[in-house]
Amino acid sequence: MSGSTLGTIFTLTTFGESHGKAMGGVIEGFPAEITLDLALVQQELNKRRPGQSELVSARNEKDQVEFLSGVFEGKSTGTPIGFIILNENQESKDYSHIKDTYRPSHADFTFEKKYGIRDYRGGGRASARETVCRVVAGALAKQALNKMGIKFSTYVTQIGGIKIESQEFFKSETIEKSLVRCPIQDASNRMENLISEIKKEGDTLGGIIQCIVKNVPAGLGEPVFDKLHASLGKSMLSINAVKGFEIGSGFISASMKGSDHNDVFDTKGTTISNFSGGIQGGISNGMPIVFRVAFKPVATIMKSQDSIDKNGNKVRIEGKGRHDACVVPRAVPIVESMAAITILDYYLRNKTIHI
Amino acid sequence: MSGSTLGTIFTLTTFGESHGKAMGGVIEGFPAEITLDLALVQQELNKRRPGQSELVSARNEKDQVEFLSGVFEGKSTGTPIGFIILNENQESKDYSHIKDTYRPSHADFTFEKKYGIRDYRGGGRASARETVCRVVAGALAKQALNKMGIKFSTYVTQIGGIKIESQEFFKSETIEKSLVRCPIQDASNRMENLISEIKKEGDTLGGIIQCIVKNVPAGLGEPVFDKLHASLGKSMLSINAVKGFEIGSGFISASMKGSDHNDVFDTKGTTISNFSGGIQGGISNGMPIVFRVAFKPVATIMKSQDSIDKNGNKVRIEGKGRHDACVVPRAVPIVESMAAITILDYYLRNKTIHI
Amino acid sequence: MSGSTLGTIFTLTTFGESHGKAMGGVIEGFPAEITLDLALVQQELNKRRPGQSELVSARNEKDQVEFLSGVFEGKSTGTPIGFIILNENQESKDYSHIKDTYRPSHADFTFEKKYGIRDYRGGGRASARETVCRVVAGALAKQALNKMGIKFSTYVTQIGGIKIESQEFFKSETIEKSLVRCPIQDASNRMENLISEIKKEGDTLGGIIQCIVKNVPAGLGEPVFDKLHASLGKSMLSINAVKGFEIGSGFISASMKGSDHNDVFDTKGTTISNFSGGIQGGISNGMPIVFRVAFKPVATIMKSQDSIDKNGNKVRIEGKGRHDACVVPRAVPIVESMAAITILDYYLRNKTIHI
Amino acid sequence: MSGSTLGTIFTLTTFGESHGKAMGGVIEGFPAEITLDLALVQQELNKRRPGQSELVSARNEKDQVEFLSGVFEGKSTGTPIGFIILNENQESKDYSHIKDTYRPSHADFTFEKKYGIRDYRGGGRASARETVCRVVAGALAKQALNKMGIKFSTYVTQIGGIKIESQEFFKSETIEKSLVRCPIQDASNRMENLISEIKKEGDTLGGIIQCIVKNVPAGLGEPVFDKLHASLGKSMLSINAVKGFEIGSGFISASMKGSDHNDVFDTKGTTISNFSGGIQGGISNGMPIVFRVAFKPVATIMKSQDSIDKNGNKVRIEGKGRHDACVVPRAVPIVESMAAITILDYYLRNKTIHI
Repeated sequence: MSGSTLGTIFTLTTFGESHGKAMGGVIEGFPAEITLDLALVQQELNKRRPGQSELVSARNEKDQVEFLSGVFEGKSTGTPIGFIILNENQESKDYSHIKDTYRPSHADFTFEKKYGIRDYRGGGRASARETVCRVVAGALAKQALNKMGIKFSTYVTQIGGIKIESQEFFKSETIEKSLVRCPIQDASNRMENLISEIKKEGDTLGGIIQCIVKNVPAGLGEPVFDKLHASLGKSMLSINAVKGFEIGSGFISASMKGSDHNDVFDTKGTTISNFSGGIQGGISNGMPIVFRVAFKPVATIMKSQDSIDKNGNKVRIEGKGRHDACVVPRAVPIVESMAAITILDYYLRNKTIHI
Repeated sequence: MSGSTLGTIFTLTTFGESHGKAMGGVIEGFPAEITLDLALVQQELNKRRPGQSELVSARNEKDQVEFLSGVFEGKSTGTPIGFIILNENQESKDYSHIKDTYRPSHADFTFEKKYGIRDYRGGGRASARETVCRVVAGALAKQALNKMGIKFSTYVTQIGGIKIESQEFFKSETIEKSLVRCPIQDASNRMENLISEIKKEGDTLGGIIQCIVKNVPAGLGEPVFDKLHASLGKSMLSINAVKGFEIGSGFISASMKGSDHNDVFDTKGTTISNFSGGIQGGISNGMPIVFRVAFKPVATIMKSQDSIDKNGNKVRIEGKGRHDACVVPRAVPIVESMAAITILDYYLRNKTIHI
Repeated sequence: MSGSTLGTIFTLTTFGESHGKAMGGVIEGFPAEITLDLALVQQELNKRRPGQSELVSARNEKDQVEFLSGVFEGKSTGTPIGFIILNENQESKDYSHIKDTYRPSHADFTFEKKYGIRDYRGGGRASARETVCRVVAGALAKQALNKMGIKFSTYVTQIGGIKIESQEFFKSETIEKSLVRCPIQDASNRMENLISEIKKEGDTLGGIIQCIVKNVPAGLGEPVFDKLHASLGKSMLSINAVKGFEIGSGFISASMKGSDHNDVFDTKGTTISNFSGGIQGGISNGMPIVFRVAFKPVATIMKSQDSIDKNGNKVRIEGKGRHDACVVPRAVPIVESMAAITILDYYLRNKTIHI
Repeated sequence: MSGSTLGTIFTLTTFGESHGKAMGGVIEGFPAEITLDLALVQQELNKRRPGQSELVSARNEKDQVEFLSGVFEGKSTGTPIGFIILNENQESKDYSHIKDTYRPSHADFTFEKKYGIRDYRGGGRASARETVCRVVAGALAKQALNKMGIKFSTYVTQIGGIKIESQEFFKSETIEKSLVRCPIQDASNRMENLISEIKKEGDTLGGIIQCIVKNVPAGLGEPVFDKLHASLGKSMLSINAVKGFEIGSGFISASMKGSDHNDVFDTKGTTISNFSGGIQGGISNGMPIVFRVAFKPVATIMKSQDSIDKNGNKVRIEGKGRHDACVVPRAVPIVESMAAITILDYYLRNKTIHI
């Protein structure tokens, strides 16, 4: 109810402030008797981790997850999986200058208005560091989904003005070859260069991530409010810096005619086109689920900006600390994790339709 | 859990199939002691109603709502508000031809896969007729919000290829002057013409609706999963035919620089620009909330189409019945209702932050 | 959240005031493709109905349920089942004298304190008339459970000072032979006489109902907060006039030794004794579930009583209207319905433990 | 949904197995800006801790709680409060003998049936050690409630056959003077002696705990399913070894007449008697809330018992390890914690009734 829990049957509850003792969470409703590879979870965390390359934040956290419960002799027990990730490399002093200041387009002002108090260090609860917990849950969800053949392909299709057009299901290895997680080499190179350039300017860039999920069985999704794409949308929009979500044809569908947009069935029950993005009437139809997520350029820039303090006085904010010029590549495992969490939840919900 | 309930404190649960006895719902958590104008609810229903003009479906339902509980001597009592809307003008025969057939890009196939059974008449539960219940709840929510000065301006910004660019807060009267609910006269005329043309072709069109909510107090929204725009997004994506959602700068933000995108505060705590769309870190900041919703062209066309039946045999579907060439104008009160329902819910949630 | 919804997957939401237009509800999550006998639902309603015999209230409602959705061609569709029961025989004038008065041990005072407004006619939302909706949902739940062999035996074990000691699974026919729904003839006769006597005095009596559920599979119940008996307890305590709940050995266990109380397994995995009442560690063990529910004497008596009005002035309340001297026999179908609703919910929840 | 979360607005989610790395939890919805005394939380934990006296289990856990988030500069921030308690003194070897054995009246059999797997060490998730997390949340809830003058008096009224009759609001100091937490000295002595005696026999005893909460404002409780006493009942019945719950007059009300049971108002709006136990129609009336909870004798006895193994073979179980002859005194802080958690949740829920 207070917003730190996601899902209905398979749920994730997270806690933690960017510069508190630890981030952590509780995963409930994970199916029992699943053999788990916990090293794979750490690999997923490493994809999201800062300090991976020249392009991203220098904050070097190990992001080592420790599982505290719910796994016994290598298998899930069906009971809650508690976990923590210690915050090691905190350097709180970096943030003392913003104690009484509202940074533009951050959550400083809104947290203060809502709660009357905030842990101002590094954004506190509003920091994207919280997403580390989502990756833990997503990595476990993917292991359960993989057993049923459900696979994910998530990659960057746009950074700033550079974009690719593709709905190909690229393999993870192809995507991981690119520092910016864009599977088309030429575009990837140009994106890298653009980020390096913008970094020198002390500025930031947004972008778009596409996620394709194949082998999702037909039947997942709950009419009328909990349509599968509605919950996927909510999951994505809950990620820091996300400003938009579209499924299948998305915004472009507004300019199409029905006769062009309709996905005609072939005799196997699959469809020839996939403008629906794998979901019809809120329920998966067995075709690949395809959606895109738009990220704004992050608000922390290394340029000097005007702002105000708590008392409404004008202040000048100088960019300091360690930050990413473009978080979009690091957001790829987060988008994929949120998709996996959501789809596993709907998979389990769908098990209750018949006795 | 089974998807027919929306919200946490202020909730709407709906029931009903397009051609069953009635649509209806239960509104829980509506604040007590609010003086209600039930005639206004009917006015909102009339905006959504088919048969309003040449442009829309000829199915002429009175859509008369009957309140059964929760209102006493003109005031809300704080107990559940039950209501029904009888389905009068059903003409079930229209639909017998689709009993064993899956219409392209409808929910026929997916409902069958999920439930193994479906009320095939007029789309059953998947019909957009269900949104009549959302308008009832939205109309009541707006009455509560209006008492706090919160106001809505919802209008069409695109039909097919015709679009307007504006973030103006148009008055309801201005919007209602346009048959297509586009407040810019010239664009409105062209949209009307386009719909008439497409209707003659037996085809359909999509479009975009923009909603602006002003005077929302700062502080609404729950980090981290229940960010206000994440729930607005889910609410909108749960409306039939919606394929995309964006808040503030939306998808265009992917091509912007941080230094251009950041909303600089003035000394009153408001911001000079509003790329954030009134929400920062998932919490309202007191600026107008601005979002857009993309609708695909509806799947029911009056043209002959290929499809399959239950047994995977090829069939030819002929367009029959009474349908809209473009539902987007009629979706305006639905979008506004879903926004009002969501914001009232978050308003009430926010009352629990302090004792 | 506002208290009118019960359950997690299989849920019941109710609405309606005693003297409003209708009582009604929405059942969500009822399994799809169950063949339903709607006449059986009406039979269950008739068991709860006032005006059945000399012993109970003369208010003669037909309590005719009308299903509005979710059932198609005799089967459940998996979509919400909406229903209403019109309030016909209202005689609102009976209650005008209590508009500004708080009846002792009723909910008049507490509703006024909570909401600042109340539909005072016949107790409004606080009336036990609301339980009519529970019986509808319970009757459907029982039809689903019966298909799996799960059976109920619910009967009165105490009225006032007269009690029986038995944990026998009496058949419905045996129970229904008794006007007070006590299956032991001699006790039944004495209970009838006692109620007649008390009725003449204008007073009321409480009692105890025992419910036994057999053939519940082992494994239902969710540690740690949603233990099966914890939710059964909540369901029962939510029935009007209930003051206590006990499972298996119940309160008497407080005086027992562990070595006497432990239920020893036989080699079939059943237990020789059943002090656990069919639930261990919050999870069903396959033995009969056995619990008891204590009802206070209802507060509406036909005697003159002291009370106060809204302004704290002393008033004298004269007993008027049509009331039961003992509601316990009519509560038997309510207890059984709440048990069925709860167990079906847990049955469905348990389907999500494994993928 | 999977049973490890309690509450609606103020919620507690717990995780942890008795002999895993740690117990822990997440508290959501705790009000912002409450000054917290974390040492007091530890004091409450110490009341529940094993190894306090001769009478209880020798397992000597420090039960040191570590808060990981949600508290900043001594105040609650309104964000989730994560915490862990390491499991130090585990001696897992004690339990290897029960790996394939079902102990009578434990959860071994039912966990195995439900999940197909279980952490058998010390009862795993089914161990009463889980309640340590409830005491953490309860101790925080009490600090919030105390600021509004709401106070608790929780004590033992029965151990085995020895009981006291009282509804006095005893002070904590008086209760804590007694090793068995029974505030009447003479009974306390006899209870101590009885426990010592039973301990020598290797047997166990049950008992009853009464909880009185004063200064609860009128208006808490949500009709119809979430009556305040229904949720208190569920909270209590979710505590290990609890078999019964009663509010106010409880089971004895079944033998009373309405004219004796009705609580007559005085002109201040309080009532002369309190058979209602402070709750009418499911809503608090401002009178002290009074309820009782029955505990069975715990199943772990130091006597040799018959049982079966996984394959249905007869086995003989010898009592081993360190256990309590009577857990009831240690359950006092658990009962009080569950009451505080529930009442704070309802307090916050009630803030949403009016805008």
